[in-house]
Amino acid sequence: MTLFLIPTPIAENALHTIPPYAQEIARGLDVFIVERAKTARHFIKSLNPSRPIQEMIFVELPENQISDDAEKTFLEAMNAGKDVGLLSEAGCPGVADPGAAIVALAHREGVKVVPLVGPSSLLLALMASGMNGQRFAFYGYLSPKRPELARDLRRLESLARQHDQTQIFIETPYRSQMVLEVALEHLAADTWFGVAQDLTGAGEMVRSLPVRDWKKGERKALEKLPAVFLLYRKS
Amino acid sequence: MTLFLIPTPIAENALHTIPPYAQEIARGLDVFIVERAKTARHFIKSLNPSRPIQEMIFVELPENQISDDAEKTFLEAMNAGKDVGLLSEAGCPGVADPGAAIVALAHREGVKVVPLVGPSSLLLALMASGMNGQRFAFYGYLSPKRPELARDLRRLESLARQHDQTQIFIETPYRSQMVLEVALEHLAADTWFGVAQDLTGAGEMVRSLPVRDWKKGERKALEKLPAVFLLYRKS
Repeated sequence: MTLFLIPTPIAENALHTIPPYAQEIARGLDVFIVERAKTARHFIKSLNPSRPIQEMIFVELPENQISDDAEKTFLEAMNAGKDVGLLSEAGCPGVADPGAAIVALAHREGVKVVPLVGPSSLLLALMASGMNGQRFAFYGYLSPKRPELARDLRRLESLARQHDQTQIFIETPYRSQMVLEVALEHLAADTWFGVAQDLTGAGEMVRSLPVRDWKKGERKALEKLPAVFLLYRKS
Repeated sequence: MTLFLIPTPIAENALHTIPPYAQEIARGLDVFIVERAKTARHFIKSLNPSRPIQEMIFVELPENQISDDAEKTFLEAMNAGKDVGLLSEAGCPGVADPGAAIVALAHREGVKVVPLVGPSSLLLALMASGMNGQRFAFYGYLSPKRPELARDLRRLESLARQHDQTQIFIETPYRSQMVLEVALEHLAADTWFGVAQDLTGAGEMVRSLPVRDWKKGERKALEKLPAVFLLYRKS
């Protein structure tokens, strides 16, 4: 038995970002542990599987812990010698999503784990940032409110300098513009700040500049799209 | 003009891990800034480009700074309105390689930067580790000698707990086994430790377990292959 970690597109109409070998493996499975069953079914359907989707099993893993359902499904598949696919809501399972618990279970049970290549907004944003790609840290979400967010950003700025490390975080679509504003208000002029939105999609946008230069140019408001933010300050 | 960030395979005979759309874009370019010209030419040749490889430009960017040659090539291409491809020695340019300086130059010059999807050993190792994928940090190489390496590992272990953060680093093939030995000797029994080797290749191996369980099982020596190491300890 093998647990395959199956990436899904991170933008609309971006099935081309999933390499054919990964699509082929996903097409051959019929047990899936997923973040959300509806999206996962839609993705598997888009691969034109030979078997009807109704005969496949989709079990949700909604929290960052193993649900009884997910564990039961995994162990039953293991005992039946059936391969299992782990799918995230978007991007790579196990990164910035709740999938890790099932992977850890697989290792404890001695089950082979095979990660497949696909899009990751964090990694693409880091590549495209021009910041330090030899040392970096990812934090998930920062505080949602302005004063705490400003404090978080200043803390990341100091970590960036202290550890010579690019700092990466994400934010929901409707807070992207607020994050940009708070960052430009509170970060030092020579700190690099970057935003990446809709990577691999039609609205792809990557901008990365010292805060000083962000402030100079005219700025369009950010689109209400999921965003990856990065900051870096040389020590 | 666009600067395309073009991923290359991280294992032998693994061209299938580069999605066709990325291969197609690479096939259409004729100016490349690369980590090593020999490997880059070999990769572009494997894509069966329509133009002879001798008519293409490959400029090396060997250090983590912009060489005069690379900058000149970039600016000339920009002035001629020609797209440029940035290639790493293996995997994704700008991550754990010297490419970031050219990306930063592109942003400063207002040139569009487009990262393409492909394999990253760090990201695949993190996916497959079962450790915390919602918070993580990458450090490149640790100290090469045993006493300093032991100290580094204990420091990462304490950072893992303090920041609830998976710690990731890499090591050269001939030191992999030493890293494993030092880690099992110096890390706490309930710290998770992971190794990933030859990801997407014929010798792919991912093992991730609490140190206690590593010590229980019989252990084959690690192959002399590049390795990604991970460790995590719940706070």
